Amino acid sequence: MRKLMVFNQVSLDGYFTDRVGDMSWARRRDPEWMKFQSENAGGDAELVFGRITYEMMASFWPTPQAREAMPQVADAMNRMRKSVFSRTLEHATWQNTRVVKGDLVTEVHKMKAEPGPDLLLMGSGQIIAQLTQARLIDEYQIVVTNTVLGSGRTMFEGVTCLPGLTLTKTQSFDNGNVVLWYSLST
Amino acid sequence: MRKLMVFNQVSLDGYFTDRVGDMSWARRRDPEWMKFQSENAGGDAELVFGRITYEMMASFWPTPQAREAMPQVADAMNRMRKSVFSRTLEHATWQNTRVVKGDLVTEVHKMKAEPGPDLLLMGSGQIIAQLTQARLIDEYQIVVTNTVLGSGRTMFEGVTCLPGLTLTKTQSFDNGNVVLWYSLST
Repeated sequence: MRKLMVFNQVSLDGYFTDRVGDMSWARRRDPEWMKFQSENAGGDAELVFGRITYEMMASFWPTPQAREAMPQVADAMNRMRKSVFSRTLEHATWQNTRVVKGDLVTEVHKMKAEPGPDLLLMGSGQIIAQLTQARLIDEYQIVVTNTVLGSGRTMFEGVTCLPGLTLTKTQSFDNGNVVLWYSLST
Repeated sequence: MRKLMVFNQVSLDGYFTDRVGDMSWARRRDPEWMKFQSENAGGDAELVFGRITYEMMASFWPTPQAREAMPQVADAMNRMRKSVFSRTLEHATWQNTRVVKGDLVTEVHKMKAEPGPDLLLMGSGQIIAQLTQARLIDEYQIVVTNTVLGSGRTMFEGVTCLPGLTLTKTQSFDNGNVVLWYSLST
């Protein structure tokens, strides 16, 4: 079975986007953080998104601006296989992307059983909440930033209490980010 | 000026209480965590609460059960000076407690200028949100627990975006807690 992982930055009050979907408050461009992101994105993975996150990512990573600002991450994001869950999207224009229309939990069960690299969720709050509830996410990499938003969206909206994730690693950065790694207890 | 500090445990999705005000999901009683809590509570401080948190604390810490479960913390909680902000509470029965009825921001400005030990806020989400907005909180000690709640109350509800808190220290524990210390940038 390949693993299903989450990587998201959250505000100090737990939101991965602000109220209007903006994530720019989480952006850090200092060398230490850029190096971590490049190394973290460097391994092979298949990316999984909801439609909203897909459209945001697809409008950024293939552009010259992205390649200039974060060449290694942009190259990895464009190169990796991607799946977007959407009932409305007909066709995905971003390279190496397929649209998945079936039931989320059923399809993710199938994807985990297929051969291939680990699966990585980014953004995609509604999908993360449903897959958390179904206990299908094996690892959460959560970056706690030093910004309070006051309102926004969490990636666990409506999840029934999930205690006892295992904290496996932490790493803090000079820019104020703290990365927390949790795995699902079995 | 004495410092105003916050100490709160939050769920992985950022809530310090669940939807019905319960905080028992945050309780950990392993020796390593008990030792940290005892040492952390051992210094002198004046405690500051809103009424709801005050009533919860006042119904627990003076009891024999509290003295038995956490003797050092119970002793410190009962001994320390306490201020509770409330418009409705007439009289505080917990030892060493005064009721403050004036405007929150004005009164806290005054308290910070008075001589005495540092001021420590626990629980008290509405008060923390207002004092964060007024930029009166000098240090936040936030314990991120390994529990997802799915819904609850944050201590920053309605705060306008506050970027750039300075991460000064982190400490992780075998029980899955990670303590993050932030100071307000000046």
